[in-house]
Amino acid sequence: MAESDDILAAYRESIDNIDAALVFMLAERFKVTKKVGAYKATSGLPPADPGREAAQVARLRELARAANLDPEFSEKFLRFIIDEVIRHHESAKGHTESAAEAV
Amino acid sequence: MAESDDILAAYRESIDNIDAALVFMLAERFKVTKKVGAYKATSGLPPADPGREAAQVARLRELARAANLDPEFSEKFLRFIIDEVIRHHESAKGHTESAAEAV
Repeated sequence: MAESDDILAAYRESIDNIDAALVFMLAERFKVTKKVGAYKATSGLPPADPGREAAQVARLRELARAANLDPEFSEKFLRFIIDEVIRHHESAKGHTESAAEAV
Repeated sequence: MAESDDILAAYRESIDNIDAALVFMLAERFKVTKKVGAYKATSGLPPADPGREAAQVARLRELARAANLDPEFSEKFLRFIIDEVIRHHESAKGHTESAAEAV
């Protein structure tokens, strides 16, 4: 059992390291989407860009396949992130932003 | 407008790079949780470990604060990942696994 726990502990150490990397990468991503939102607002660019979102979904699905990750999940993941960006924009600005700023 | 597009393109290049990193880290995370599931199944360890999940949530919230990321989001993110791990286990094994294997 002590040996078992060591094996499990080693796996969990890897999960913890990966989760830390994910959190910091997500923080960096939100920094960039925040800049994109501000930039679009000041430069008069349209917030929505459906073509960009479609391209991003296709790209993530392709990357997922290369990484042996379920492409469906990569798309769900992107939409999860986009929803959070929209939520940020809504709470920060008090109005609804397009999902396009998130991608 | 051309200059504007260059600025936006640069932001999007950063988003694309970050997303690729996220996809590959997620793929790595699922590799580890798959090993954890198999290891627990063969070694007779209980699948559920609520203490581990609680500790992981607390740790991610702390990391999020350090990264200037919304701690609520980091917890939502962890639960999103855990749900996917459970879905994987269910579809792979035809029965319900505990969320604990995901953390």
